[in-house]
Amino acid sequence: MKQQLHLLKIGGNVTDNEALLNSFIKDFLSIDGPKVLVHGGGKTATELAAKLAIPQTLVDGRRITGRDTLDVAVMVYAGLINKKIVAKLQASGCDALGLSGADAGLVTSSKRSDTGIDYGFVGDPERINGEKLAQLISLGCTPVFCAVTHDGCGQLLNTNADTMAAEIAIALSGEFDTALIYCFEKPGVMLDPDDESSMLACISAAKYKDLRRSKVVSGGMIPKLDNAFRAFEGGVKKVTICHAANLRSGTELVPAITDQSAVQ
Amino acid sequence: MKQQLHLLKIGGNVTDNEALLNSFIKDFLSIDGPKVLVHGGGKTATELAAKLAIPQTLVDGRRITGRDTLDVAVMVYAGLINKKIVAKLQASGCDALGLSGADAGLVTSSKRSDTGIDYGFVGDPERINGEKLAQLISLGCTPVFCAVTHDGCGQLLNTNADTMAAEIAIALSGEFDTALIYCFEKPGVMLDPDDESSMLACISAAKYKDLRRSKVVSGGMIPKLDNAFRAFEGGVKKVTICHAANLRSGTELVPAITDQSAVQ
Repeated sequence: MKQQLHLLKIGGNVTDNEALLNSFIKDFLSIDGPKVLVHGGGKTATELAAKLAIPQTLVDGRRITGRDTLDVAVMVYAGLINKKIVAKLQASGCDALGLSGADAGLVTSSKRSDTGIDYGFVGDPERINGEKLAQLISLGCTPVFCAVTHDGCGQLLNTNADTMAAEIAIALSGEFDTALIYCFEKPGVMLDPDDESSMLACISAAKYKDLRRSKVVSGGMIPKLDNAFRAFEGGVKKVTICHAANLRSGTELVPAITDQSAVQ
Repeated sequence: MKQQLHLLKIGGNVTDNEALLNSFIKDFLSIDGPKVLVHGGGKTATELAAKLAIPQTLVDGRRITGRDTLDVAVMVYAGLINKKIVAKLQASGCDALGLSGADAGLVTSSKRSDTGIDYGFVGDPERINGEKLAQLISLGCTPVFCAVTHDGCGQLLNTNADTMAAEIAIALSGEFDTALIYCFEKPGVMLDPDDESSMLACISAAKYKDLRRSKVVSGGMIPKLDNAFRAFEGGVKKVTICHAANLRSGTELVPAITDQSAVQ
């Protein structure tokens, strides 16, 4: 039987909020066994870009990463946020190791180019060195990833943190029984975004299809859930979407294979 | 017999100069066996601080690191410069692993407090986890350190890169025969800073004392040489000061123990 590993992902709404981040870190520390953290960025990068008068271009709600915006992402994600989290974890006795995808060649991405829109220095993970990552974990380290990767040819690339978390969870599934936990500022997937009691305890792949068709699930939740369901296909054992301040509750995802069961 | 390890240190004048950095990296790659790189910052951080209108205070020529200046240092050193170097090395097949002193608890510093001047968030290395660092090296990784450390209680600290390089070289000397190489924008230690032919092929500890007394050696070269001679006391086998574009030449330091020899 494989050892269980927890991979948690937090976004900018957690890293930007000191109290929420501290509460999350406390819960993260209480998880037994090997674990990995993937963090996004957030307002800090947007604010820094504004202070530096770097114009931000959005196409269909997605940010175009020019050279200056990439520098800001690398400074804020790989520098400021990553090292702040690492220092906090180290202070609590967790042997955190801050990483970008370039470090130890762990996550190599390909520059997004086939979409008809030039997103600039944005890359989608293509190759994860799961073996090297497992070796780092075997030394007792807790990898803390920012969502900056490289193309293997010297270029750093801005990467979606949800996608990166799913791909790393998949890559570790050969070695570990991997649980992927997306933590954000809501308690889970809710039928009514303003009513916490409408949270679904679980969603099957079929149910997700329905919710998406009826537009109950929309916006940023779609790529998160797409990534989540894809993770099952890659061997991830368990996927949960929960509030960063309450890792014990949330919406559990149920892979397609059990769609025939009673879970809906 | 121990395996030889080379630890090279480059400063901001190298990291700020793309052509010099590329030339240095080519030579760095050609060094056989395990190696470690420690890099300083440079103008990039000063420029970013200016753009963000963060006032820079100097006392006796030394920068005071307030909270905002620390953030700039972490962003530029641990983010921008560190990941740029890592991506370049990875592109050349070197399994670079970017690190701050906080990562894996490798370098713990104590906030400088006994000098009569409050330097702010500046720390002097106090404890290096040489064992963990050697484990990372044994995985085939080439550690690339920025000069940001932590105090073990959650606080990041700005650290002198020359000192950090010496301390890491000392910490690795139990496991390896360590050669410490300070690379900068001059060919070595020169009697006349404007005349490259005045470069000394070697300096003994006694000679350094003379040069320092007669003020031939001054300014930023003093802490560099102080660190270098201290490294011998900690077990480092060889210390060289050379131009970043010419690692094969330079000034070789000779430890105190051989002062009685003919080397002067």
